[in-house]
Amino acid sequence: MKSDTNCLIAQSGGPTTVINASLAGVIKKALKEESIHRIYGAVHGIQGVIDDNLLDLTDIFENDDLKINQLKHTPAMFLGSCRYKLSDYAENISDYSIIFQTLKKYSVKYFLYIGGNDSMDTVLKLSAYGKTIHSDIKFIGIPKTIDNDLECIDHSPGFGSAAKYIAASTLEIAHDTYIYDMKSVTIIEIMGRNAGWLTGAAALARNEYSSAPHLIYLPEKPFSTGKFVADIKAQLKERKHVIVAVSEGVKDRAGSYISAESAKTDQFGHVMLSGTGKYLEGLVKHTIGCKVRSIELNVLQRCASHASSLTDIEEAFQLGQHGIKAALNGESGVMATLNRKDSHPYTVEYGTVPIEKVANIEKKVPLSWINEEGNDITDSFVEYALPLIEGEANVKYRNGVPEYFNVSHLVENITV
Amino acid sequence: MKSDTNCLIAQSGGPTTVINASLAGVIKKALKEESIHRIYGAVHGIQGVIDDNLLDLTDIFENDDLKINQLKHTPAMFLGSCRYKLSDYAENISDYSIIFQTLKKYSVKYFLYIGGNDSMDTVLKLSAYGKTIHSDIKFIGIPKTIDNDLECIDHSPGFGSAAKYIAASTLEIAHDTYIYDMKSVTIIEIMGRNAGWLTGAAALARNEYSSAPHLIYLPEKPFSTGKFVADIKAQLKERKHVIVAVSEGVKDRAGSYISAESAKTDQFGHVMLSGTGKYLEGLVKHTIGCKVRSIELNVLQRCASHASSLTDIEEAFQLGQHGIKAALNGESGVMATLNRKDSHPYTVEYGTVPIEKVANIEKKVPLSWINEEGNDITDSFVEYALPLIEGEANVKYRNGVPEYFNVSHLVENITV
Repeated sequence: MKSDTNCLIAQSGGPTTVINASLAGVIKKALKEESIHRIYGAVHGIQGVIDDNLLDLTDIFENDDLKINQLKHTPAMFLGSCRYKLSDYAENISDYSIIFQTLKKYSVKYFLYIGGNDSMDTVLKLSAYGKTIHSDIKFIGIPKTIDNDLECIDHSPGFGSAAKYIAASTLEIAHDTYIYDMKSVTIIEIMGRNAGWLTGAAALARNEYSSAPHLIYLPEKPFSTGKFVADIKAQLKERKHVIVAVSEGVKDRAGSYISAESAKTDQFGHVMLSGTGKYLEGLVKHTIGCKVRSIELNVLQRCASHASSLTDIEEAFQLGQHGIKAALNGESGVMATLNRKDSHPYTVEYGTVPIEKVANIEKKVPLSWINEEGNDITDSFVEYALPLIEGEANVKYRNGVPEYFNVSHLVENITV
Repeated sequence: MKSDTNCLIAQSGGPTTVINASLAGVIKKALKEESIHRIYGAVHGIQGVIDDNLLDLTDIFENDDLKINQLKHTPAMFLGSCRYKLSDYAENISDYSIIFQTLKKYSVKYFLYIGGNDSMDTVLKLSAYGKTIHSDIKFIGIPKTIDNDLECIDHSPGFGSAAKYIAASTLEIAHDTYIYDMKSVTIIEIMGRNAGWLTGAAALARNEYSSAPHLIYLPEKPFSTGKFVADIKAQLKERKHVIVAVSEGVKDRAGSYISAESAKTDQFGHVMLSGTGKYLEGLVKHTIGCKVRSIELNVLQRCASHASSLTDIEEAFQLGQHGIKAALNGESGVMATLNRKDSHPYTVEYGTVPIEKVANIEKKVPLSWINEEGNDITDSFVEYALPLIEGEANVKYRNGVPEYFNVSHLVENITV
């Protein structure tokens, strides 16, 4: 006999390929629990709670493991996202009143929020406010971000899959580059405004015949265009094809983005920022003059589910399950987390961490994992990242393309 | 008892993910033939023949089906490429003398060249020159190009895999886009300077919940920026998220590339061409003002072997085998080809076509396969392209990345 207490889950922030795996973990576990009657999903994160825009996930997924499995492999967010930042309740209580009204209306006892450090701020604020009104609702954060910049967790779900895509793509770009018998420079621009985890992951492309990327620049160390040109020139003395991985967020000593130097006025008279890769492409072209190309991996590094890491998918799923477990154990104001027990063989254990230790904090690549010259990462980085990209997602295909979960509720046409 | 006549194979032009599958087909078939003693591969296309830079492929692949299979799934070109255009022999005979000397030196009776319409020009010229000197060497072309612009073949090997990558990526980008509850325009720039086959293939991303791409622009029809803005505005009345597939090669009525309009002076005072996607992104930003992003699929659409079409790989392999078969049958000055016998079920037959019908000619998308408005393709295009992306490559992974064939001979370091 199921109880009449319910759980509510939502997703927030930027996409990864495994946020839906965490959602699938929550649903799978919650469906089995006697103490949870219905599972609601808020559409577009906390905004969906404010707007009373909920889906009944029990109806969609009950007794359907095939659907749960398909959800697990679907990119981005089945429930949609938002970038809504709650004010402090001391400053503006209205959002809080509405949210807690909705939670009461749907008899929600367990509130789970999947997101990055901004989303953990929402969990922190709701759980703090809940205490002031003696609410018994449990607020749990479930981590996700391709940027891997969450504190108090060995690595963030979403990072491993993005890292795998970046490493595989870097190797494929290297094969594409090696075929011509002429000097060339290829610059791969990778996501990460402040943390260089994803850019460092390009090093996982290296193997016994290919040392690409030959240069790696992370935002953790100041970037000098003069040093960059000197590095490229030195590399071109040693090899025909130089492949560079650079973070979109590299900055000079003064903290200005390198790409800001290339601000140009477009045909409408507006200043445009071209990307870091494009800027460096121009720099190489005009200071060195060899063949040069820049490639921006763009959103595919965060949404290419067909190339996800199986390790990442499974961990994201487990973290979702662990979130429900923690809520049922009476925890609140915590984030589900994982710690690495060992790298050989790779094993992790799951737990929770107080949310205030995670919210609004960015974890960067340790400087000791970047080489002295600031143009490569060290073996410690590789040892850390390698297990996270192991294993391949078993994505089903139909009509030659991946068969993902139907998200028609997010793409409803506007009636004119 | 093997004969003492040999075969020589080379690769030329731009990369695809299945050129090595054709090479694998040649090697597999040639290894079995009594009348072929050794199989040589010229490194960097016809340049490698001129430079006497050959690899003995017999040594590498004999009795090793695992290696042949790995080669079949490796992107770009195991033998390297070149962009060398032979002069007419009437104008400059020196290259021809050197090439035929090398062929004689290595007792080459069968010459196979894998490439696109430019490379078929090389086969045409060599076979014509061979006739004038009464050479008995057989010259065979094996088709490849992601652009699908070769004549006298139902479709070019390489196209199906690029099309599959484009369709899957378009669907994944759509999932990435749908999560936010705000109007947005996403512009995907796809390869193709003159032919829109690849851009049209983005339509294969459409399914029961996602009609993206909502607008498709090919270079076959003149592009008007005014019409483009009007199209986007009309779409934004009907849906929140508008996703556009546009060929890099769209041109205005006067035949000028649209991207040329965005020529800007960079920080070095040089004029830079920004891409078509970036230009249209700026156009939407300043005429409509909603959230807008452009994504250039770049070289990954031609080198992402991890996402290749199995149909494409197998056909490329068969065409390699058929090239050897044609040579042994005494054909010369021909290209191996395939014709579609049926689309339901999809079946093809292999044959040959005189090389002069293929060399230097570009096949474009029929205008009847583009809608009246010039902003979409028709069902005939989809029916044509769908079977070509069916099936998934079985790529092996090691350390989390695809395990491709060692190409160290192409990446040798330069000794300082």
